[in-house]
Amino acid sequence: MRPLPTLAVVGATGAVGTVMCDLLSSRKNVWGEIRLVASERSAGRTMVVRGEELTVRGLGPEAFEGVDVAMFDVPDEVSAEWAPMAAKYGAVAVDNSGAFRMDPDVPLVVPEINPQQVRNRPKGIIANANCTTLAMIIAIAPLHREYGLKELVLASYQAVSGAGKVGVDTLLGQIDKISGDRTLGSRSGNVRQAVGDDLGPFPAPLALNVVPWAGSLRDAGWSSEELKMRNESRKILGLPDLKVSATCVRVPVVTGHSVAVHAVFGSEVDAEGAREVLQNAPGVILVDDPAAGEFPMPIDAVGTDPSWVGRIRRSLDDPRALDLFVTGDNLRKGAALNTAQIAELLAAELTR
Amino acid sequence: MRPLPTLAVVGATGAVGTVMCDLLSSRKNVWGEIRLVASERSAGRTMVVRGEELTVRGLGPEAFEGVDVAMFDVPDEVSAEWAPMAAKYGAVAVDNSGAFRMDPDVPLVVPEINPQQVRNRPKGIIANANCTTLAMIIAIAPLHREYGLKELVLASYQAVSGAGKVGVDTLLGQIDKISGDRTLGSRSGNVRQAVGDDLGPFPAPLALNVVPWAGSLRDAGWSSEELKMRNESRKILGLPDLKVSATCVRVPVVTGHSVAVHAVFGSEVDAEGAREVLQNAPGVILVDDPAAGEFPMPIDAVGTDPSWVGRIRRSLDDPRALDLFVTGDNLRKGAALNTAQIAELLAAELTR
Repeated sequence: MRPLPTLAVVGATGAVGTVMCDLLSSRKNVWGEIRLVASERSAGRTMVVRGEELTVRGLGPEAFEGVDVAMFDVPDEVSAEWAPMAAKYGAVAVDNSGAFRMDPDVPLVVPEINPQQVRNRPKGIIANANCTTLAMIIAIAPLHREYGLKELVLASYQAVSGAGKVGVDTLLGQIDKISGDRTLGSRSGNVRQAVGDDLGPFPAPLALNVVPWAGSLRDAGWSSEELKMRNESRKILGLPDLKVSATCVRVPVVTGHSVAVHAVFGSEVDAEGAREVLQNAPGVILVDDPAAGEFPMPIDAVGTDPSWVGRIRRSLDDPRALDLFVTGDNLRKGAALNTAQIAELLAAELTR
Repeated sequence: MRPLPTLAVVGATGAVGTVMCDLLSSRKNVWGEIRLVASERSAGRTMVVRGEELTVRGLGPEAFEGVDVAMFDVPDEVSAEWAPMAAKYGAVAVDNSGAFRMDPDVPLVVPEINPQQVRNRPKGIIANANCTTLAMIIAIAPLHREYGLKELVLASYQAVSGAGKVGVDTLLGQIDKISGDRTLGSRSGNVRQAVGDDLGPFPAPLALNVVPWAGSLRDAGWSSEELKMRNESRKILGLPDLKVSATCVRVPVVTGHSVAVHAVFGSEVDAEGAREVLQNAPGVILVDDPAAGEFPMPIDAVGTDPSWVGRIRRSLDDPRALDLFVTGDNLRKGAALNTAQIAELLAAELTR
C-alpha cells in the first residue's frame, strides 16, 4: 500500500480555513502530512489539527513541494495565481474560489452529484461551487434525475459569513449598537443613524434590514452572485440550456444560506413523490412538517453537513412545478465540507 | 355643500391603528368628527389626532351611530362580527383584515389600481389587501398594463410588525438577549438557547434567523399568507387565471415587507422600458442604481408611503420575464395608508 498523501490547506486561518481544520480533525483520516499555509501576515501562528499543533507557513512556491493535494480557501486573485503554481509542483489543486469555476478545462464537482468529474482535470485544478449554489443544488439534483429539470427561479437569504469574518464582525457589531433601543426599525428610529458608518464589506446596514445585493455588478443589472447561481447550476447538472433567474439578498443571519426555489420540470411532479426522492438523497435532510413548526432554518442548519430541505409544495397553477425552501451551512457544505469531500475522492485515487 | 362625514377608527390603539392616527393628522383633512374605537380593555385611553385629544370608546353597536365610514384595523374574527354591524348602522366599512377579501360581494381595492371598485359594495363593506400583496402589486399593476401579466413567482422577506406590536417586542427582546455574544450564529453559539422560550407569535426565533413560515397551514402545505398573495393578486388585477407561486418568509426586520418578484408577461419586455413605466407609476419610487448602492431596503422604506422598486432585470433566459425587488412599509401602504386612501375616496363620494 502506498503512503498516505500529503495535503496543503491554503488559507487555513480564514473563515472557511478554520472550519476546514475542524473538519479534518473530525472526519475519517486519509492524510499523511497536513500542511497549513496562509498569507505571510499569518505565518508562524499555530493551529490544532487532528490533535497536533501545527505552525502555519507563509504562502510561497516551496509550500507545495511534495504536496499531493492542495486546497485553496482564499480570494479569487490569490487562487488565480497560486492554484496553477501548486499544479505545476505536481499537486492537484481543489479551489474554493470563483477563479476557475467556469473554465471549461476545470471540472466543477459536487461529490453527491458528479464525483466522476474529478478525473477530468487537464489543468490539475478542480473547482468547488459557490456556497449559495451548493446548498440548493444538493436538493435539486435528485429531483432533476427524477423529473427532468427545465427552469429555476431562485431568491436567496444569504448569511454575512459568506463575506468572511469581517462580515460576521460587522453584523454582530451593528447588533450591539442597536440593542436596547426599542424605537429602531419603526418610523421613529433610524437604523442607518444608529449603526453609523461601519458597514464593513456591505453596501448598507444589515441589522434589522435585508440588502438585495451580493457580489459585484455585471451586465444588465445582474450581480456576480446571481450569475454564479445560473452558470454553476448549468455546469454541475450538465444542462447548458437550463433557464435560471436568481435574486441574491443578504440577510442578518451569521451562518446558513437559504434559498426559496421554484423549480419547473419536464414531467408532472407531486409533493409526496418529491419528499420520497429527497428522503433518500445523499447530503439532504428533509424537514417538512409545518404543523409541527418543522422547516429548514439557518439556526438549525449551522454546524451541520447536509442541506436542509422543506416547505415542499406542488405549484397550484402548474403540475410540473415545485416550490421548496433549502438551508445549508455556507461554511461547511457550502465551502469547507465540499472541498474536503473532493480532496478525499483524490486521496482514494492516489492510494488505490 | 354637505357637512364633512364622520369617521370611526376601530382598533385605534393597535400597531396599524396608531399609524392610522398619525396619517389622519398629516393628510389633507376630509373628515368631520373622528371617533376612536377599541376593545373595552383600551377604552378610556386618550390619543391625539389632528391636534385634538380624543378619548377611545369601547367597541359596541352604539359606536357606529351617525358614522359614515368605519375603518377596521382588528383581527379577522372581530371584523367578521363588527364590519357587518357597522354596515347595518349605515356606515361603509373599510376592512383591513382578511375576513372579507375573497367575498365576491366585497371589492378588494387599491386606489392606484382599481379605485372605481369602491362603488361596487352590495354589503356596504370594502376590503383592503394583505400587506405583502400591497407592496408588490403597486409595482406589478402598471407593468401588467404595459406587458400583460401571465405569471408571478414570489419570495417574501416579511417584517415582524406584520404580526403586530407583540411581533416587534419579541424580535427586539431577542436582540437584547443575544447582543454582546460574539459566538452566536456560528457553529459554537446556539441561538435557540440564547433566545430561550420567548418566541412570541412566531414558531422559531427571529434574531439571526429567517423563518420560512407566516400565517396558518392550509391545503397541500401552503400557508395562508402564500395563498393570500395568489388570491388577492388575481382579484385586484382582475386576472382569475393568473399563475402565482409564493414562498412567504419572516425575517429579522421590524418594519418593511420586501418581495423578490419573477414576473412573466405575454409580450417581450425590456428593463429600460419597465423602469420608465415604474418611474411614472403612482405610489412607486424607483431606486435602481446598484453601482451607487441604490436598491429598495426596509430601513429606507419604513415611514414612507410608496412601494420602493429596484433591481430590475430582464431574465437572461426568457425575453418575456422580469426580475425585480420591492419593499414597502407594511404598516403604511401595506395597511393604514391604503385604508385611509379608500376612506378618502368614500369621503369624496359622500360630500360630492
